[in-house]
Amino acid sequence: MDNFNFYAPTYFAFGKGKEAETGKLVKRFGGTKVLIHYGGGSVVRSGLLDRVKKSLDEEKIAYVELGGVKPNPRSGLVYEGIDLCRAEKVDFILAVGGGSAIDSAKAIAAGVVYDGDFWDFYEGKPVTAALPIGTVLTIAAAGSEGSPDSVITKEEGMVKRGASGEAYRPKFSVLNPELTQTLPAYQTACGITDIIAHLYERYLTNSKDVQVTDRMIEALILAMVEEAPKVIENPNDYEARANIMWGGMMAHNNSCGVGRSQDWSSHNIEHELSAEYDCAHGAGLAVTMPAVFTYNMNHDVMRFAQIAVRVWGCQMDFAHPERTAKAGIEALRSFLISIGMPKNFEELGAKEEDIEKLAHMACYGSENATGTVYGFVNLSQSDVENIYRLML
Amino acid sequence: MDNFNFYAPTYFAFGKGKEAETGKLVKRFGGTKVLIHYGGGSVVRSGLLDRVKKSLDEEKIAYVELGGVKPNPRSGLVYEGIDLCRAEKVDFILAVGGGSAIDSAKAIAAGVVYDGDFWDFYEGKPVTAALPIGTVLTIAAAGSEGSPDSVITKEEGMVKRGASGEAYRPKFSVLNPELTQTLPAYQTACGITDIIAHLYERYLTNSKDVQVTDRMIEALILAMVEEAPKVIENPNDYEARANIMWGGMMAHNNSCGVGRSQDWSSHNIEHELSAEYDCAHGAGLAVTMPAVFTYNMNHDVMRFAQIAVRVWGCQMDFAHPERTAKAGIEALRSFLISIGMPKNFEELGAKEEDIEKLAHMACYGSENATGTVYGFVNLSQSDVENIYRLML
Repeated sequence: MDNFNFYAPTYFAFGKGKEAETGKLVKRFGGTKVLIHYGGGSVVRSGLLDRVKKSLDEEKIAYVELGGVKPNPRSGLVYEGIDLCRAEKVDFILAVGGGSAIDSAKAIAAGVVYDGDFWDFYEGKPVTAALPIGTVLTIAAAGSEGSPDSVITKEEGMVKRGASGEAYRPKFSVLNPELTQTLPAYQTACGITDIIAHLYERYLTNSKDVQVTDRMIEALILAMVEEAPKVIENPNDYEARANIMWGGMMAHNNSCGVGRSQDWSSHNIEHELSAEYDCAHGAGLAVTMPAVFTYNMNHDVMRFAQIAVRVWGCQMDFAHPERTAKAGIEALRSFLISIGMPKNFEELGAKEEDIEKLAHMACYGSENATGTVYGFVNLSQSDVENIYRLML
Repeated sequence: MDNFNFYAPTYFAFGKGKEAETGKLVKRFGGTKVLIHYGGGSVVRSGLLDRVKKSLDEEKIAYVELGGVKPNPRSGLVYEGIDLCRAEKVDFILAVGGGSAIDSAKAIAAGVVYDGDFWDFYEGKPVTAALPIGTVLTIAAAGSEGSPDSVITKEEGMVKRGASGEAYRPKFSVLNPELTQTLPAYQTACGITDIIAHLYERYLTNSKDVQVTDRMIEALILAMVEEAPKVIENPNDYEARANIMWGGMMAHNNSCGVGRSQDWSSHNIEHELSAEYDCAHGAGLAVTMPAVFTYNMNHDVMRFAQIAVRVWGCQMDFAHPERTAKAGIEALRSFLISIGMPKNFEELGAKEEDIEKLAHMACYGSENATGTVYGFVNLSQSDVENIYRLML
C-alpha cells in the first residue's frame, strides 16, 4: 500500500426531507450571501428550488440565482457565474442538481477567488482555494457531492477536462433519495454506470497488497448490481434509491481508493465521446469500459479474474484464468445492457470516421498533453484508436 | 434505510514515517500548547515519543506530557490531565498510543472545557465541546482515531462506560503501520478482534434494505480474516499491517454503519469483563461475541445465514437456514481461536460465581440504567446471565 493523505470533511445530511436543512447548513458553514446554481426545468418544476429558497429565507440568508447548467457543463456559464458572484459579493456557492451543477459550481467557486482564468485549474493547476460549496443532490452518479473533483467542457474546441483539489470538497451535501425518484430510467442507469466506473477505475491498480480497498470496491459494485434492477423496474423504490445514493458517494470520496494507483483511462477516453457527441457521460462509459478492459486484460489477468469471481459470480477456471477474466468483462457488459445502456458506437451516436480525431484529442488535446493516456496501462494514440475500434 | 447525518472531518496521514508530520498537523489545526498523552514503556523505548517531540519542536510548538495511561483507561488520570491542561493553558491534546491513550485524551479534552464532572459525559450527556484532539496511533483496534467515541473506566466501582459526540472526532490522525510492527501477536489479535466486533455490531441490525452498508461491512470483515493470519505469522508484514490499520479505521468511523440500527450488546456485556478482571477488551470480545450471537441467532436467522455464506464461505442450507447461521458463528469462533484468542471464561480469567454480579452491572450499573441491554435483541438481566453461562 502506498503512503497517502485522506481528508473528506463533508457533512452529509441524508434522508427524506433533508433539503429543509439547507439554510441551517449554509449558516453553519459561514455563508451569508449565496449563489444558487442549478440546471433547469426539473429542479424548478418539482418545487425543490422553492423549498431550498424557503430554508434560506428562514435563516435570513440572501441569495442570487444562476440556472442553465447543461449536462457536460460548459465554461461559458462558469465565466458568467464568476462575474455574477463578484458583482453580488457572494460568499457561498450552493449547487442544486446533479454532477453537472456541482462541477460547474466548483469551477465558479475556484474562479471567484482566483486572479487568472479558471481554466488553468482544468489544465493541471491544483485547486488550493475556493469559496465554500454546498450541494443538494438530485442524481446518484458523479460522486461530486463528496469528492474533490470537477469536470468542465471548454466550448472553444469542445475540450473536456477535470480539476481537483481539497478546496473542491463540499462543506455539506444534502442527499435525499426521494429527489432521485422522478429520474427517468435512462438517466438513472447512466448514473449507476458512472458509479460503477468510479469503482472499476480504482480497482484497476498496479499497487500490490491492497486487499482492504479491493474488498470495499467489490462490495460497492456488488451493491450497485443488486440495487440497479430494482430502480429500473420501479423508479419509486426509495430503499434501492437510498442504497445507490450512499454507495455512489462512497464510490468516489476515495476512502476505497487510497494507497493505490488508479486507472482513469476509461473516463479520459469517454470524455472525448461526450464532448464530441454530447451523449450522457454514463452512456459513453457503458460503451467504453468493456472495450478498455478487454484491451488491457492481459496486463493483469488475475486481477480481472478476481473481480469476475468475487463480483460477477464467475467460476474460476484455474487452468485458464484468462477465460474467467473475460467472462467477468462480458458479465459487466451484459449487466450494463440489461439496465438499458448502449453497447456500441452506433447506439451511442458516435462515428467510426471520427476515431483518429477522438484518439488524437484524448492523447494531445490538453495544453500539457504528452501523447499518452496514463493509467493501469499507459496508452498511445494507436492504442486508443484500437480501443475505440472495439466499440464498433 | 433510516435518515442520518454523517460528518467525519478527520485528516489522515497514512504510511511510513508519517509521524514526522505531527508538528505540522498540530499547527494546521490551531494548536499552540500541546498535552502529549500516552501510556508508557513502548512509546518511549521505541523512540516514537522523541520523534513526535522533535516534530513539535520543529514547528516551535510548546508541550507538556502526561504518561501512564493503562489499558481500560481510568478516570483518575483523566482528572489529573484536566488539572494539568488548565494549569498549563493547553489548547490541543495529542494522544500517542492506542485506543486507551486516545480515549483518555478525549475525556481530558472534553473535561477541560466543561464546568462539571467529565464523568457526566459517560453517563449519557452528549459531548458538544472539547479541545481539539490529534492522534499518533500505535495499534489497529479501537478505531478511536476516526470515531466520535471514547470509553473510560471509573475507578470507584470499576464502572466502564462510553461517551460520544462530534467534538470527539480527532482533527487529525497519523496512521503509520510500521508503528504496529513491534506489537506482540496477542495484542495484535486482540486489536483485530475488536475491529471485527465493531463490524459485527453494525451488521446486526433491525433496519431493512441496508444492502450497501451490509456489503461494506462484509468486505471489511473478509479483509480482516485474510490479513490476520499474515501478521500473526509475521509481525513485520508491513502490507498486512497497513490493510488492517485502514480497515480498522473504516470499521469504526461509521461510514458503514449509517442509516441502520446497531447492536452494541457484545461490547456492553464485554465491558463488565474487562472492568472486573482487567483483561484485554479484544480478548473479552472473542469470548463474548459467539455467546451473544448464539443466544440471539433465532431473532433473525437469515441475517446470520447471510454473513455465514458471504464472509465465512459456508454453503447455504436452504432447507435448514439455521444450520448455516450456526456454522457461521462457529467459523467466527474457530477463526478467533486460530489467532490466539481465548475461548471461554476460564481462559479469560473470569469466574462462574461472578455471573449474577456481572449481569447486574451490565443491566443496572450506570446511573441512567433501565435494567435492559438494548440492541439487536433487548436483553434482561436473566438473558445476560444466560449469555455469560454460554461462555463457560
